[in-house]
Amino acid sequence: MSTPRAVCLLSGGLDSTTCLAIARSEGFECYALSFDYGQRHRIELEAAARVAQALGAVRHVVLKIDLRQFGGSALTDDINVPKGRSASEMSHGIPITYVPARNSIFLSCALGWAEVLGAQDIFIGVNAIDYSGYPDCRPEFIEAFERMANLATAAGVKGRMRIRIHTPLIRMTKADIVRRSLELGVDLGLTFSCYDPGPGGRPCGRCDSCILRRKGFEEAGIADPLNA
Amino acid sequence: MSTPRAVCLLSGGLDSTTCLAIARSEGFECYALSFDYGQRHRIELEAAARVAQALGAVRHVVLKIDLRQFGGSALTDDINVPKGRSASEMSHGIPITYVPARNSIFLSCALGWAEVLGAQDIFIGVNAIDYSGYPDCRPEFIEAFERMANLATAAGVKGRMRIRIHTPLIRMTKADIVRRSLELGVDLGLTFSCYDPGPGGRPCGRCDSCILRRKGFEEAGIADPLNA
Repeated sequence: MSTPRAVCLLSGGLDSTTCLAIARSEGFECYALSFDYGQRHRIELEAAARVAQALGAVRHVVLKIDLRQFGGSALTDDINVPKGRSASEMSHGIPITYVPARNSIFLSCALGWAEVLGAQDIFIGVNAIDYSGYPDCRPEFIEAFERMANLATAAGVKGRMRIRIHTPLIRMTKADIVRRSLELGVDLGLTFSCYDPGPGGRPCGRCDSCILRRKGFEEAGIADPLNA
Repeated sequence: MSTPRAVCLLSGGLDSTTCLAIARSEGFECYALSFDYGQRHRIELEAAARVAQALGAVRHVVLKIDLRQFGGSALTDDINVPKGRSASEMSHGIPITYVPARNSIFLSCALGWAEVLGAQDIFIGVNAIDYSGYPDCRPEFIEAFERMANLATAAGVKGRMRIRIHTPLIRMTKADIVRRSLELGVDLGLTFSCYDPGPGGRPCGRCDSCILRRKGFEEAGIADPLNA
């Protein structure tokens, strides 16, 4: 039997990197997919390329979709990224860094590539514990997407295979993710998480993403190699 | 009350043009969305621009996504477009012009734009009668997408509004579509349907899309203005 293939969404951050490492550890031949969608932290694509190579992805595709044509998010429009929010602030409501329908778009593209590759497995590093409150990171969204995916595709119609959306991190804390990553031998110094990097790609340290990352390392009792 | 907004997917062909005309006739302020996805019949985008203007779309966005990076379809890869297929051949199986997950990708992007615009209505000109057998044109796919869409978005989470995917053509024959379009005063000479145009953008006359278009005009007893 040939090695099963999986499409793995990869932003280059802590979560998607750990997710790719898990897919690899489960024996999948991985096709990493990143997006150049007009994000202000476009520098993350350099991390994605490093990670894809280090973790042995068979191919890494960066798909360009200019979501700045729609705007409406601090990541894709001229809107400031919120800084210094407390855990309590993060646990209420949907922040302005939410990019409308981003995971629907990313997963749909992954679905298209999966169908061409004959892959029935798609990995996405969404997390519904230490996260920013995005609606498209919740388990109910993922289940509805999977159901749709199996009606959208030729593979699903022919009943030859079943598309599965894997979300190995969905119930993990950020500290769990850091620990799992290290167990799998991932060099987290390759990753990049900040939404609003400064000159030279320096993490701002104060956006939700930086705060959640720091919380993960602190709770795991490990130093973030990015600060080394 | 302000005029409700709708995002209307627009390829520039007969179906999506009629669909846009129906959305306009129902009183929506229409935001037309087309895709430059590496299709061999990229010339359809010129038709989309003409149609968007003629039908009074408030805005027309052409989003570029290079699906040639995935390939796997006669429309996005170096695969010949089938010619001269009979109705019986077209009614069996999924043809090689199927672009994996295309409508999932297009609708997800429409969803993102709708959310930014505060629109809860999305129009897509899919048809499950005189069509090419694409899985993502079937009513069960559209229903599953709509359900997913309402879990994917901030609007759905807040319960403030409900995303609706409108498919006014889904049960119409191609002749019905031609007739409806003319009732609405649409100049079908602006549209373009061929998958594999020749030099100067001349329709090939023999691909599934040309064959279905001809069938529609013939059964409606009307001359296609494109042949005038």
